[in-house]
Amino acid sequence: MKRIVVALGGNLILEAGHTATFEEQVNDIELRSRGIAYLVMQGHQVVVVHGNGPQVGASLIQNEEAAAVVPAMPLHNCVAQTQGQLGTMLQLSLTNALRAVQIDRPVVTLVTHTIVSQDDPALTAPTKAIGPYYAEQRARRLMREHRFHLKKVGNRGWRRLVPSPDPKKILEGAAIERLLEGGAVVIAAGGGGVPLMEVAGTYKGIDAVIEKDLAAQQLAHQIDADLLLHLTDVQGVALDFGKPQQRWLDRVTAPELRHYQQEGHFGPESMGPKVESAVRFVSHGQPNRRAVIGSLSDVPRLLAGHAGTWVVPL
Amino acid sequence: MKRIVVALGGNLILEAGHTATFEEQVNDIELRSRGIAYLVMQGHQVVVVHGNGPQVGASLIQNEEAAAVVPAMPLHNCVAQTQGQLGTMLQLSLTNALRAVQIDRPVVTLVTHTIVSQDDPALTAPTKAIGPYYAEQRARRLMREHRFHLKKVGNRGWRRLVPSPDPKKILEGAAIERLLEGGAVVIAAGGGGVPLMEVAGTYKGIDAVIEKDLAAQQLAHQIDADLLLHLTDVQGVALDFGKPQQRWLDRVTAPELRHYQQEGHFGPESMGPKVESAVRFVSHGQPNRRAVIGSLSDVPRLLAGHAGTWVVPL
Repeated sequence: MKRIVVALGGNLILEAGHTATFEEQVNDIELRSRGIAYLVMQGHQVVVVHGNGPQVGASLIQNEEAAAVVPAMPLHNCVAQTQGQLGTMLQLSLTNALRAVQIDRPVVTLVTHTIVSQDDPALTAPTKAIGPYYAEQRARRLMREHRFHLKKVGNRGWRRLVPSPDPKKILEGAAIERLLEGGAVVIAAGGGGVPLMEVAGTYKGIDAVIEKDLAAQQLAHQIDADLLLHLTDVQGVALDFGKPQQRWLDRVTAPELRHYQQEGHFGPESMGPKVESAVRFVSHGQPNRRAVIGSLSDVPRLLAGHAGTWVVPL
Repeated sequence: MKRIVVALGGNLILEAGHTATFEEQVNDIELRSRGIAYLVMQGHQVVVVHGNGPQVGASLIQNEEAAAVVPAMPLHNCVAQTQGQLGTMLQLSLTNALRAVQIDRPVVTLVTHTIVSQDDPALTAPTKAIGPYYAEQRARRLMREHRFHLKKVGNRGWRRLVPSPDPKKILEGAAIERLLEGGAVVIAAGGGGVPLMEVAGTYKGIDAVIEKDLAAQQLAHQIDADLLLHLTDVQGVALDFGKPQQRWLDRVTAPELRHYQQEGHFGPESMGPKVESAVRFVSHGQPNRRAVIGSLSDVPRLLAGHAGTWVVPL
């Protein structure tokens, strides 16, 4: 029995920038939760960390469209809303899949908060574009009245930029561990967690986006998981991805992978965060830790070590 | 040390039919969570069940306003969203209040589902008006295309009616109990829980509204709580409320209270569900169970038995 943290892209549920009905999202989730159900059926302790990019985008658009009637909620509160929204879908899908094979393991969803450092340099350099495209007049008003950072993006209009600080601590780590020990499958840190900052002993939500792959790493580290599993839509990590000389990595040490990362092999929006997460996780000094990056459709072979990119300590 | 389930009205956070900014809601929650923090400070195990009426109303309005751009989510999914939305606010408010007095108790929020019976007669008789007022044309389209039930309400337009079935089981009961035993304060069953029905061994969300006072009762029963505490904006239960002969009840047996209920003393939207919940809770045969209905601003005196209406078994 292993303790496994699974990171699942929000864009595996719904393509970035797209919208979908509830039924379409549920269908996608049902397909995609089979691999996770497999892990549970093998008797492992499993935490699922899902992305929420497309969903929080949709939520921000709803907030903007209705702003004249219902006061818009801040981004960090919208993140919490998407944790409920996607959590219930994923939880029911997993619960039903497990019940279908007579596995009596509860699945629970925790609203989860991620603490970031006040001194994180990312906080003063917003980089993540989120939410709707705004017309110039509205953009200028949001900058003036709400102190949002916006920038013009091509011809489609203006978009808000928010920081993406590093996760320092998952507030609910101990509760997650306790639920795992009781046999539950736990859905946590959705969308990377609701970003919090501690100011004068008080936690306060901040408008930022925590990279869910890094939040998954932080959580895996806190609860001392054995395996950090990044499920994606490609078979693993490749060097020179998409070029003629492309090579898939099947086993790589953390220092080697860090080296390839520094050579610029991995894009900031796709493989980059997974690689960073994997390198961090196996570099904490615990010799038994492994990280795997591989395809969602291949979980049994991934788990058996016959597929994916396995990241091992030095 | 007692195990206490506290039910807190959503309209104690935000008045029904009103909207409010995030900051206004947080201020209200901070004021209103003091009484709950007091219970925790006294060393009790505490579960908080909050209402979500005004918030789910706002969410439905946002879904409607943005429907041309983002597909509207079903009501049960909006309930899950409000559990995230209010859960994070309440959790942070309580966490900060406890940290301020050096009490190291984690506060966690569980996305919670409430199972109803397929045979519940309420399911075929929708009674709860929710969400925006619609113009006739839109109302007719929603009835035709989505099979919603709508009815004309005075001059303001049409409103959707959904059923309010009885809660049969809180899906996450065991997880909540485990978290309590680990010392956590648990926020659960927000808005009465996401309503589920079991169809052919599969759980499926349904568009309904579970009365949060009854969900709190069901949860308190499942986890065998000692005390079910309904916090509201009046000092307790009164007979002939608002009339010259009005009398406050300070201590009443469940059968007596049931008798007064049947005489029609309690309105269906205000005291009715709290009374029903209290009577059910202390009527399960466990002699030590108590239910209290009283003012949010009076929690220390309530807990000491010097205020509120105490409902005791026969």
